[in-house]
Amino acid sequence: MWKYEQPVTVEFGNKAVDRIVPLARQEGWQRGIIIATPHVVKNGLTERIMSQSEGRITEVFSHISPNPDVADVDACADEIRRGGNGFVIAIGGGSAMDLAKAAASVCMTDESIRSYHGTGKALPHRHLPFIAVPTTAGTGSEVTSVAVLSDHELKKKVPIVSDNFFPDYAVIDPCLTYDMPPYLTACCGIDVLSHAIEGYWSIHHQPVCDACAVYAADLVFRYLLRAWEDPEDAEAREKMCEASVIAGLAFTLPKTTSSHACSFPLTNLYGIPHGEACGLTLDYFVRINGAAEDGRIKELARRLGFKDAAALADGIGELKQKVRLRRDLKDFHLTSEQMDELVVLSHHPNMGNNPVTVTDDILHELYQSLTGSIQ
Amino acid sequence: MWKYEQPVTVEFGNKAVDRIVPLARQEGWQRGIIIATPHVVKNGLTERIMSQSEGRITEVFSHISPNPDVADVDACADEIRRGGNGFVIAIGGGSAMDLAKAAASVCMTDESIRSYHGTGKALPHRHLPFIAVPTTAGTGSEVTSVAVLSDHELKKKVPIVSDNFFPDYAVIDPCLTYDMPPYLTACCGIDVLSHAIEGYWSIHHQPVCDACAVYAADLVFRYLLRAWEDPEDAEAREKMCEASVIAGLAFTLPKTTSSHACSFPLTNLYGIPHGEACGLTLDYFVRINGAAEDGRIKELARRLGFKDAAALADGIGELKQKVRLRRDLKDFHLTSEQMDELVVLSHHPNMGNNPVTVTDDILHELYQSLTGSIQ
Repeated sequence: MWKYEQPVTVEFGNKAVDRIVPLARQEGWQRGIIIATPHVVKNGLTERIMSQSEGRITEVFSHISPNPDVADVDACADEIRRGGNGFVIAIGGGSAMDLAKAAASVCMTDESIRSYHGTGKALPHRHLPFIAVPTTAGTGSEVTSVAVLSDHELKKKVPIVSDNFFPDYAVIDPCLTYDMPPYLTACCGIDVLSHAIEGYWSIHHQPVCDACAVYAADLVFRYLLRAWEDPEDAEAREKMCEASVIAGLAFTLPKTTSSHACSFPLTNLYGIPHGEACGLTLDYFVRINGAAEDGRIKELARRLGFKDAAALADGIGELKQKVRLRRDLKDFHLTSEQMDELVVLSHHPNMGNNPVTVTDDILHELYQSLTGSIQ
Repeated sequence: MWKYEQPVTVEFGNKAVDRIVPLARQEGWQRGIIIATPHVVKNGLTERIMSQSEGRITEVFSHISPNPDVADVDACADEIRRGGNGFVIAIGGGSAMDLAKAAASVCMTDESIRSYHGTGKALPHRHLPFIAVPTTAGTGSEVTSVAVLSDHELKKKVPIVSDNFFPDYAVIDPCLTYDMPPYLTACCGIDVLSHAIEGYWSIHHQPVCDACAVYAADLVFRYLLRAWEDPEDAEAREKMCEASVIAGLAFTLPKTTSSHACSFPLTNLYGIPHGEACGLTLDYFVRINGAAEDGRIKELARRLGFKDAAALADGIGELKQKVRLRRDLKDFHLTSEQMDELVVLSHHPNMGNNPVTVTDDILHELYQSLTGSIQ
């Protein structure tokens, strides 16, 4: 049995950002709040949209940090309650969208998001109308039902999943990604590849998502390097935005797996950006899963133009090298205690979605190979 | 600019039919009516579902002909109004689902469906909750917003498109397709291939649908022959059902094109079943479009494992031969007047979605080659 649902309406194209106000008008939404990263405020985009809105959008909230904290969500929800806002527009990368998703839901209650963060308690089935506008080609958050939030006080970074979190509209404008610097382009691009490949091999895989995964991964192999080399290569930017949203469709139902599970401690303990942290173990898990499974990963490799899983893993390694992403952890000079800690913390719930059971032994070997303790 | 929306929740799997009553219960829907082909009533499925429903489903309507007439829709809508039904379950091929879609909408008005059939008038934005349950692997109607209806009195067969027509749920149970005879399997399978390929090359093509199109077409090439050879080959039946629903996702937004446009007069005038009629011209249009376009069809061919468009066209021809579908019109001994009529009637609006402008000359040559007047 498998299930497919995708309640988000996607509008995609250069200058799609000019569709935001007409959409809100068409839906009759009033008193909007824009939740945007400071960068988006600074470059004038929020101002432009507000002036287009002729009073329909009344506020901007931009206290957003790269790994948004539950306290930020609560502050934003307070602002929404105080402003009596009727709809939410999130503009930014995953951080802005994830914070906004949570705020647009929890503002309908009189609670803190802490009640729902890692507690298993389900959010009530009400949320403000929501438009998600990504400014990076990476997260896919604009079409997913997940928001990753941190509680820095409790040292906790976990995703909340809720049907509430599906945006009503995803407005994707490749032009907004032109000012991503090459390193961010690379990190986000490898995140897209991880979403596609992990969505494909997740134990919850299903055909519609498989179709999207193959399509998105193929685009990353064809266009990431171009977007990295020339930030204003319009075709490459467009194709990477396509890859990002289609990879979002590919993983939101099957969920991510091993590489995402390992990425969380790598980010939390060593500050490695999310996409780069995912990519660090992706080729490794292609080899592990490819050696053990039933032909699906060979099939994926074949559809992507590689001979087999090993060749796909090599291809990922080469791509990381070309876009100058980290391929090991050698320069951290990790102690064996630190490696033990990574092994323990890599047992994130998403690890259970990996098609091969990832044991402590496998993780030890993985981290030993990344730190150069074994070759 | 492109747009993607897919408001239908898909539940797929062997015995998925047992999900119908739980879904209705979960939604709190009352007083359901099953709209089903006589075959489905006869094989006991409607009775089984009604008894599972413990009174939640109160009626069955089964006056459905292969090319459903507007009068049938009105009769069904009358039945719904009379019964005070609260939701609709359509079980059958495209005919049952298309009739039910129209009835579930027009029953909310006091009008005849004739007011909306080929008139351009939009249906009001209200409809009864709707579950679509296909019994063939072909139409994709369970995930589309289109209903093809005939007005036999006015000799008119045209589609109505309405956002109202997206079912709330598509419940797809491959077991329901086991009793399709080989000829029906072949016709429906080639219809799936037409949906995928036409959705891909439509001038309204877009990436999410492209991803679905490639995936679905690939499945048809790999599994149709097996399903045709052995109706109870569970894997082949499952894969053809996957192909059908994913091809539905692939064409509902871009719409169909040339082969569907030509199929309408071939069905109306010569009684050739829909899928066979579409397939009759599909390889021809692969050659026409492949010769004229920008590399997209070569890319499609490549992704499906063919060298180029010509090889893809040959592959379609071979598949039709293997599943014993008609590959020409020679046995109709058409007069030149009849061919002229076909040319005129092939200029259906969907023809405008073809990437190459299809002139009278092209159509004359097509029908001459099919009738053997030229080789």
